[in-house]
Amino acid sequence: MEKDKLLMPVPKEVSFTGEKFRLDPSFMMRTAGKSSRLNSYATRIYRSLSDRTGLFFLQDNVSDSDTLTNAKMTIRFDRTGELKVNENEAYELKAGKEGVTLTAKTDIGAMRGLETFLQLVSADKDGYYIPGVMIKDEPRFTWRGLMLDVCRHWMPLDVVIRNIDAMAMMKMNVLHLHLSEDQGFRVESKVYPKLHEMGSDGNYFTQDQIKYIVKYAAERGIRVYPEFDVPGHSVAWLVGYPELGSRPGPYKIERRWGIRDEALDPTKEFTYEFLGNLFKEMAALFPDDYFHIGGDEVTGKDWDKNPDIQKFMKEKGIKDNHELQAHFNLRILDILTKLNKKMVGWDEIFQPVMPKDIVIHSWRGIKSLVEASQKGYYCILSNGYYIDLIQPASFHYLNDPIPADTKLTPAEQKYILGGEATMWSELVTPENVDSRIWPRTAAIAERLWSPGSVKDVDDMYRRLEYISFRLEERGVKHIKNYEMMLRRLAGGRDIAPVKMLVDLLEPMKIYTRHRDGVTYLSISPYTRAADAARPDQKIPREFMKAVEKYKSDGNFTHLEPWMAMFELWGDNHAAFTDLAEVSPVLREVVPHSENLKKISEMMLEYLGLLQNNGKPSKELLENLKKTCESAKKTYGQAELMIVPAVLKLIE
Amino acid sequence: MEKDKLLMPVPKEVSFTGEKFRLDPSFMMRTAGKSSRLNSYATRIYRSLSDRTGLFFLQDNVSDSDTLTNAKMTIRFDRTGELKVNENEAYELKAGKEGVTLTAKTDIGAMRGLETFLQLVSADKDGYYIPGVMIKDEPRFTWRGLMLDVCRHWMPLDVVIRNIDAMAMMKMNVLHLHLSEDQGFRVESKVYPKLHEMGSDGNYFTQDQIKYIVKYAAERGIRVYPEFDVPGHSVAWLVGYPELGSRPGPYKIERRWGIRDEALDPTKEFTYEFLGNLFKEMAALFPDDYFHIGGDEVTGKDWDKNPDIQKFMKEKGIKDNHELQAHFNLRILDILTKLNKKMVGWDEIFQPVMPKDIVIHSWRGIKSLVEASQKGYYCILSNGYYIDLIQPASFHYLNDPIPADTKLTPAEQKYILGGEATMWSELVTPENVDSRIWPRTAAIAERLWSPGSVKDVDDMYRRLEYISFRLEERGVKHIKNYEMMLRRLAGGRDIAPVKMLVDLLEPMKIYTRHRDGVTYLSISPYTRAADAARPDQKIPREFMKAVEKYKSDGNFTHLEPWMAMFELWGDNHAAFTDLAEVSPVLREVVPHSENLKKISEMMLEYLGLLQNNGKPSKELLENLKKTCESAKKTYGQAELMIVPAVLKLIE
Repeated sequence: MEKDKLLMPVPKEVSFTGEKFRLDPSFMMRTAGKSSRLNSYATRIYRSLSDRTGLFFLQDNVSDSDTLTNAKMTIRFDRTGELKVNENEAYELKAGKEGVTLTAKTDIGAMRGLETFLQLVSADKDGYYIPGVMIKDEPRFTWRGLMLDVCRHWMPLDVVIRNIDAMAMMKMNVLHLHLSEDQGFRVESKVYPKLHEMGSDGNYFTQDQIKYIVKYAAERGIRVYPEFDVPGHSVAWLVGYPELGSRPGPYKIERRWGIRDEALDPTKEFTYEFLGNLFKEMAALFPDDYFHIGGDEVTGKDWDKNPDIQKFMKEKGIKDNHELQAHFNLRILDILTKLNKKMVGWDEIFQPVMPKDIVIHSWRGIKSLVEASQKGYYCILSNGYYIDLIQPASFHYLNDPIPADTKLTPAEQKYILGGEATMWSELVTPENVDSRIWPRTAAIAERLWSPGSVKDVDDMYRRLEYISFRLEERGVKHIKNYEMMLRRLAGGRDIAPVKMLVDLLEPMKIYTRHRDGVTYLSISPYTRAADAARPDQKIPREFMKAVEKYKSDGNFTHLEPWMAMFELWGDNHAAFTDLAEVSPVLREVVPHSENLKKISEMMLEYLGLLQNNGKPSKELLENLKKTCESAKKTYGQAELMIVPAVLKLIE
Repeated sequence: MEKDKLLMPVPKEVSFTGEKFRLDPSFMMRTAGKSSRLNSYATRIYRSLSDRTGLFFLQDNVSDSDTLTNAKMTIRFDRTGELKVNENEAYELKAGKEGVTLTAKTDIGAMRGLETFLQLVSADKDGYYIPGVMIKDEPRFTWRGLMLDVCRHWMPLDVVIRNIDAMAMMKMNVLHLHLSEDQGFRVESKVYPKLHEMGSDGNYFTQDQIKYIVKYAAERGIRVYPEFDVPGHSVAWLVGYPELGSRPGPYKIERRWGIRDEALDPTKEFTYEFLGNLFKEMAALFPDDYFHIGGDEVTGKDWDKNPDIQKFMKEKGIKDNHELQAHFNLRILDILTKLNKKMVGWDEIFQPVMPKDIVIHSWRGIKSLVEASQKGYYCILSNGYYIDLIQPASFHYLNDPIPADTKLTPAEQKYILGGEATMWSELVTPENVDSRIWPRTAAIAERLWSPGSVKDVDDMYRRLEYISFRLEERGVKHIKNYEMMLRRLAGGRDIAPVKMLVDLLEPMKIYTRHRDGVTYLSISPYTRAADAARPDQKIPREFMKAVEKYKSDGNFTHLEPWMAMFELWGDNHAAFTDLAEVSPVLREVVPHSENLKKISEMMLEYLGLLQNNGKPSKELLENLKKTCESAKKTYGQAELMIVPAVLKLIE
């Protein structure tokens, strides 16, 4: 394994010298400068290195202690970094035969460099070493975020914490917590306690937990900012405070998914008094400069039906609901400005009346990003980074906030701060959310950190597979929960037959899963084959790759290894049906297993002919095509992912 | 799979009727009586059932609502249970074609019954069902505990929480938290904040977290009581408060394992003032009736060296350190009595001067348990339940607090309240602690719940394997973290070769691992093969079983299936050494792999001869024996577990 090719995100400049710095139990690290969070960070990296190598390092904690003059790795920095946009995160890492030096302007830059250092660890016949290297690195974008929806499905503290750890590993620096929704208000309010008491089913972060999250992230150089989505997406608020609503209550916590008509009443002074007090309380919990007010998907229907609101609009000369929301947003802006917060909102808030110091969060298309930056608004991109939609990592990876062919001037480009991977949680639970976030978000992290010229998809996938395992080492559950979910599906029996099938399935993509005849509620089970199945499955992707190679050069060796796979897949059906016999939850995907068997048998015949330069009969081709077309059908809200490659091969 | 034989712990009375109650999406549950914690408990069981079956149950929450008259399962109870010794935990569960009824005296009994209900879920060609059954059940012992040492290695909140969940599943009802040690003081004290600030490396439970743990456990019918180990095992206290010590400070947090000479000074009034204030604070955090003061392993050496202490002893006529500790214990008893707490201590505190209302926690041998109960002291057993010592489940399972041949009178037996599985944490981290606790503790749980006549080891193992997977479903990480640790050992490569070997390894047992030439500190890596390897490995156990069967009836069919295994094991060596080549952390167990290969090759020859009624040559037998004897050697603090069975076979 060439470790020099396993760095992710790819640094700006790297050159390997061929030297080796040997690791042994005497290895020590020291910092030069006072930063207790950097000392803790370095101690964690040091212990990871010990855990990974099994070397019994004897140093207790990394520090700037004078007793550490024998340390073979020194970490220098000039000042404590601030958790602000455009803070310096650059670092230089030099490793030679004698040791390692990491230099940065800020302790945050040093943290980024420590992650690169850990990725460098290599081994040969003499043991573990750090390869000699010169790295100069800094991020391309200053805003490299993950949005986590902890509302639609509740995501408890440990989900947040392990994702912060993973973000740090991928040099991401913003955690956006989506904290209120129709399905739940997820943070304790002491000012308006009925928000969490009546609007969360008991599932919310205490204020102590929020402080813990903010501190935990800050110690890793990660900003945390909240989103309170107003005036729509607010049913959970109205359960405890129906007087905020645009129609009379009572309201109850929403169990269904989708866009609702409920909205705060933007015409009552009480609404602004309430939001003023609440946001003051929340602003104190989240020290970040930014505050997200959502602002998306307001249908306006509850406004249309309310005579008082209609009267208000007439009196104020407000023409339509868009203008009414702009009126609302300006009042909120006033509240946030007094709290010294900058407003962020989904691109619906991008309206001419808004001042230039808001941030537009583009989700509906890159168009709003371009327009906003041209008009001098700061903006961040999430369109193309919706990881809940089960698209492949390659799709997100190539989604550049500033593509090479951009028409934006350099001055305009400066308004594009970066982007955020966006994890909406309709169809995920704490059990499988990791597999929807990781490893694909690592590809987004690289897009936002590395130079725009780094965009070789194959190379990204090669590194992503390795990083995926390192993410697990850091605490992410995307790998280990997969087999656990399969064990439940198999009722504790051998998972081999179910794994063989589910490795080839992906959940339905974009929003189609909601339109497949099943009504998902927040209380539904999310434990079926489609929920265990991971996005961007490796085996179908690699089979497609083999087909593409074969189609381009006609060399059968690309396809040859897959013959054994088709044999296994064909044979799997009997074992799978036996298992489904005793584990009824699997029965909904038996048709996939059956189609896989049929396709496999025909493919074996087809590939056998190709191998021997034979020509498949028209009948075989037609049968194969027909079976593939019918195998495109979804079962159990999952798709059989080898079908497109088979169709491509025979077309 | 015969579900009727998968219940664990085995109920007191069970009879199956042959009827089936069908589960479908319309299934609803209701309670009759007010207990919000029971409603929540039942809701969790209901959702588990939905998750397991994939059935889209539509009921929002289980409750005693009038709208639930169509519910097919009713849960009745007379009163809210108290978290007290000897509380009623009995229940009756009846399932017939038309539905399920669960009846109990207390809501805690109903919780125990709900766990049995969930274990009953079965499937046939028509889907999921609950088999018709009549169960009458109650526990044999009232104290069925798990002690968790969160000190030697810090065990954060999520470790505690998932173990509470697992305990509830196994009908256990006491969590004993060992909260202070030489290596750490693990709970926030507002009265003496230097305890946690200076004595924990920042790793401690906040008081809010303790309240959360206590509440979380109470909602599952589980008591939580604390242990503050005094006067020994107290180095971490002395870091912040050296004035409590028996010699002048400064002290620092201990990184080594073993028994230390440091101890609180039992002659200073300050010590009792301090403990009085601290225990008052802690007693308020833990509402349980009991309070554990440790009291074990006081060497007395720091007392011997202190002239003031010697003078005090002379003045008071205290003859030796045992008497001095008894003096100390009586003072502590006085403090606890005023706080309305009953004292629990390790069996060192069992001294004639102590009054009868203390509880003796037997750890050094069952002798103290017998003596204590004969003298009218209440007592609990942990000797034989030391799960950190890597002994097989069968050993713990057959360790009965009141064996069938007991000499104790029924009146004396009443003083034996039960027992606790004891998880000391020198050699475990949050990553592998689950695999040391579970599933073996389920065998202990059954010992303490089920009738003493339930003691078929083979049947226990059969059920344990199934329960092990259900424990994972409940959140325990003993299965999934195993492969994760193997992935780290393999550096992200295919784990097959390392799994094949490590499946046959166990860490060294009892206290031998500390005497194998390696000095383990709290900061050492616990990520090596011996740390991934699980206790009581299934494959070597089953091979031993096959050998025993063959030895008893001479039927070769018991051994025949193992020939394929020896073939695989022999072949594995090449792959394993290739992997160790690139992953140096594995090199320490290469000799095990090599021995496995040698033994496998000879075993194939040997078994081939047996199969064909041939006679192994003397040379082969001697070689095999010699190789086995040398393969008994430990490498990487791990043992190759198939060796004893091979030796048994050829002897």
